[in-house]
Amino acid sequence: MALLSVLTPVLAVVLCLVLGFMLVKSRETKTSSTSERKTEVASKAKDFKPWVDQDLQDDTETTAREDEDGDWVDNCEEDRQHVPYSPPSYPEEMMLQRSEEFYTLLNQRRSVRFISPKPVPREVIDNVIRTAGTAPSGAHTEPWTFVVVSDPEMKHKIRQVVEEEEEVNYRQRMGDKWVNDLAKFKTNWIKDYLDVAPYLVLIFKQTYGILPNGKKRTHYYNEISVSISCGILLAALQNVGLVTVTSTPLNCGPQLRVLLKRPVNEKLLMLLPVGYPAADATVPDLKRKPLDDIMVRI
Amino acid sequence: MALLSVLTPVLAVVLCLVLGFMLVKSRETKTSSTSERKTEVASKAKDFKPWVDQDLQDDTETTAREDEDGDWVDNCEEDRQHVPYSPPSYPEEMMLQRSEEFYTLLNQRRSVRFISPKPVPREVIDNVIRTAGTAPSGAHTEPWTFVVVSDPEMKHKIRQVVEEEEEVNYRQRMGDKWVNDLAKFKTNWIKDYLDVAPYLVLIFKQTYGILPNGKKRTHYYNEISVSISCGILLAALQNVGLVTVTSTPLNCGPQLRVLLKRPVNEKLLMLLPVGYPAADATVPDLKRKPLDDIMVRI
Repeated sequence: MALLSVLTPVLAVVLCLVLGFMLVKSRETKTSSTSERKTEVASKAKDFKPWVDQDLQDDTETTAREDEDGDWVDNCEEDRQHVPYSPPSYPEEMMLQRSEEFYTLLNQRRSVRFISPKPVPREVIDNVIRTAGTAPSGAHTEPWTFVVVSDPEMKHKIRQVVEEEEEVNYRQRMGDKWVNDLAKFKTNWIKDYLDVAPYLVLIFKQTYGILPNGKKRTHYYNEISVSISCGILLAALQNVGLVTVTSTPLNCGPQLRVLLKRPVNEKLLMLLPVGYPAADATVPDLKRKPLDDIMVRI
Repeated sequence: MALLSVLTPVLAVVLCLVLGFMLVKSRETKTSSTSERKTEVASKAKDFKPWVDQDLQDDTETTAREDEDGDWVDNCEEDRQHVPYSPPSYPEEMMLQRSEEFYTLLNQRRSVRFISPKPVPREVIDNVIRTAGTAPSGAHTEPWTFVVVSDPEMKHKIRQVVEEEEEVNYRQRMGDKWVNDLAKFKTNWIKDYLDVAPYLVLIFKQTYGILPNGKKRTHYYNEISVSISCGILLAALQNVGLVTVTSTPLNCGPQLRVLLKRPVNEKLLMLLPVGYPAADATVPDLKRKPLDDIMVRI
């Protein structure tokens, strides 16, 4: 009994230490399992489809930003020679006239969802894509791939992928706020024009390139570069009397990439149905901001 | 003594509990202070300058992506009426000719760093900016502001900000790899053209808008929209015989925003010096990818 009463404090201390250790351990496990679970849930919410690969992690711009240069250096070899540059020049009056005419032309551009099935000469599409390819790009990487689909079966498959995803988006993923916004816009997930338009142009951004030695080459500013290229494409289409609607299919990128057999470094940025406007095409009666609302002179 | 030997286990238990509690607490504090410190370091690395506000957190695209619609709905009111749309149309031969001419024009575009100080008519710049403003945008938000600087003093201040940051970038922030890349490109941080060019066009993206009730309105796809607008701007400049170089000044956005008195919802996307090419302008002798390297037909 005396021995016991001497040992009791020792036992108590040991017991307490064991309990304390277990408490600390359990808290650690709890913390890490909570954060693991969070990560899991987050990645599940993102990657809930078997075909989803890293395509959904679409933010190379974000991570690359630290390494980027401000200037879009156009030459890509040290010993690239410089050559004299003298582009066309015009007298002031003609400049003014040209600037007015180009504005008038581009100001007629509208996003058109009613596209005619009438065939469009393929050479015109070739030239329009060639023109898009004249855009500047970070370090002259030219990080764009234009997939031009005219095959009716493939167009239909693309439509199926897009409509299926859009319906899921509308019904499940969007918050009430967004669904209300959409109701306002009278948009729904039926995209006739994906079957009807003679061409679908799917614009992929190449997030990185592969060097001859097999290593990856970061494509700085690839999304901005490809978007600029898309702006030039829109101008080129308007210039020949063709119409399109700029769309960025939500969550379809990975499926469409696989469907079109594009490599993993390419990510879908935009999908443009291209053709003549339908005879009965309409557009919402909207206005553009006046110059003073978009321009500040200093 | 008997009392003491009875109390000892109790005291030991209390002592152990106190110790255990302190251990747990200290671990919690440690964990949170570590993560706080990490956040602090990370944000310090990003926000190491007093004028830096949320401008550097430039990734509205990333966070907005979950809420976005694929279609760039152009109408912005429920009861927006539709009107017939019939843009100019051309016979096939003329389409082909127009597409070739436009390609030839745009294919002459190059990024030019040698810009003439010769004055450019202001009306031409106005029309070029008007043209850029015809770009499509997510939900017709038109999320762009073009700040056109011709004031020599302001141009010089901009140059100082850009050169100072560029020098820091080159000297301190860039890894060896990037500095080597740049050596190849023969780029440095001296940007004469920021003083010399008659106009500097600073393109800001509006990451959100302010509704009449004071609430924020997300601008979906604002960076892509503004980049498309920039593509149209480049085409408009080329069309009148002016040159520019597409630059995205690294880390200067917040300073330039403050300098130009732009609101916090605007973030600098691009800085374009605009003018005639200098008489002795040169460009690196580079080629563009052939059509088959950028286009896939299906």
